[in-house]
Amino acid sequence: MKEKPKAVIILSGGVDSTTLLYDLKDKDYYDLYPIIFDYGQKHHREIEAAVSTLRKLKIPPKIANLRLLGELAPSALTRDSIAVPEGHYEEESMKQTVVPNRNMVFLSLAISYAIGLKAEIVFYGAHCGDHCTYPDTRLEFVKAMQEVARLCDWNRMQIDAPYLLMDKAEIIKRGLELKVDYSKTVTCYCGREKACGKCGSCSERLQAFAKNKVIDPIEYDSK
Amino acid sequence: MKEKPKAVIILSGGVDSTTLLYDLKDKDYYDLYPIIFDYGQKHHREIEAAVSTLRKLKIPPKIANLRLLGELAPSALTRDSIAVPEGHYEEESMKQTVVPNRNMVFLSLAISYAIGLKAEIVFYGAHCGDHCTYPDTRLEFVKAMQEVARLCDWNRMQIDAPYLLMDKAEIIKRGLELKVDYSKTVTCYCGREKACGKCGSCSERLQAFAKNKVIDPIEYDSK
Repeated sequence: MKEKPKAVIILSGGVDSTTLLYDLKDKDYYDLYPIIFDYGQKHHREIEAAVSTLRKLKIPPKIANLRLLGELAPSALTRDSIAVPEGHYEEESMKQTVVPNRNMVFLSLAISYAIGLKAEIVFYGAHCGDHCTYPDTRLEFVKAMQEVARLCDWNRMQIDAPYLLMDKAEIIKRGLELKVDYSKTVTCYCGREKACGKCGSCSERLQAFAKNKVIDPIEYDSK
Repeated sequence: MKEKPKAVIILSGGVDSTTLLYDLKDKDYYDLYPIIFDYGQKHHREIEAAVSTLRKLKIPPKIANLRLLGELAPSALTRDSIAVPEGHYEEESMKQTVVPNRNMVFLSLAISYAIGLKAEIVFYGAHCGDHCTYPDTRLEFVKAMQEVARLCDWNRMQIDAPYLLMDKAEIIKRGLELKVDYSKTVTCYCGREKACGKCGSCSERLQAFAKNKVIDPIEYDSK
């Protein structure tokens, strides 16, 4: 049997990257190497969620210690002194949840891992949807990353973000077709046992499930 | 007095970045924030060298724990099981000293740090000189990184590699004008007390000092 080409996938334990993992597994074209970044996020429960998903799919987890990122630059996601704002992504306050340059850092390390594995591509679940809180989920950013990935090694490395132009409701629609177990995903930024239901991340998730007329299987403190 | 704009500089403790640090300090346009990456390199003496230089210049050091990079991908610079090859940079064996995607990883984390500091630019001492062992010191790579840096945050972040088109002899010529203390630099990849004088990195350094008709102030095991 011919060996499959290898792909690295950045897995956060959230809805987008978990759906993408199921999607790539379903397509069965690549041998998948997921990498999970521990960057000191308050919502480290997402790491446990990612590991549960991988256990279910019988793929070994690889957790990368990237606490450095949380130390280097402040964000509401990594500093106790900055509260996670409530509200919707459209609001200015949500910019406090930007982890400076997170996607470039994740992608660059995922590329190092991919070069070592002789993988040909790195997947990540970025989507810009209908809001623009994060500069590094924009189409032009992804295109520029694809160009730099082409040049960073003697062999061309590819980057793909297949959900980039979808919104979260469309991603969940795809996930429901793939029978993704969304009980094993974490979206809330607050890191408490139950999701807060109030932060921008929870709001977007709840709306996306509602649009699909499906009940979100995770527990909330309030909705 | 008006505050100076801030700049992050990636400092390795080698000849190129040390010269660049002196150069930027001499120009006195930026308030400088050097960052030193500990990525599990065998030649961790370069970190001590970088710290000595900063102490001399009265700039506080910041050492970033990036052991993850050494773990993610194999290289002769980070794995005891892979010997550092002897010879010149032109030789195929020198490709074993490539740390996969090192410059993108360094730059991406330096950008995170710069965004947090509200710095406007990241400097690094890459030069392609007259050999091409490292894909991520090519002009087209640097140009692509400049483009992605422009897009990764809501504010434009700049990257500059002012020595990119110079060779090591030209960098040392500039450093001699600036009275750089080259006794506080480490170039050898082997990590022993004295420089080996035989690896590609030592060979290039020795030739560059010879071209400038100056004796290299560091100690060698053999030349």
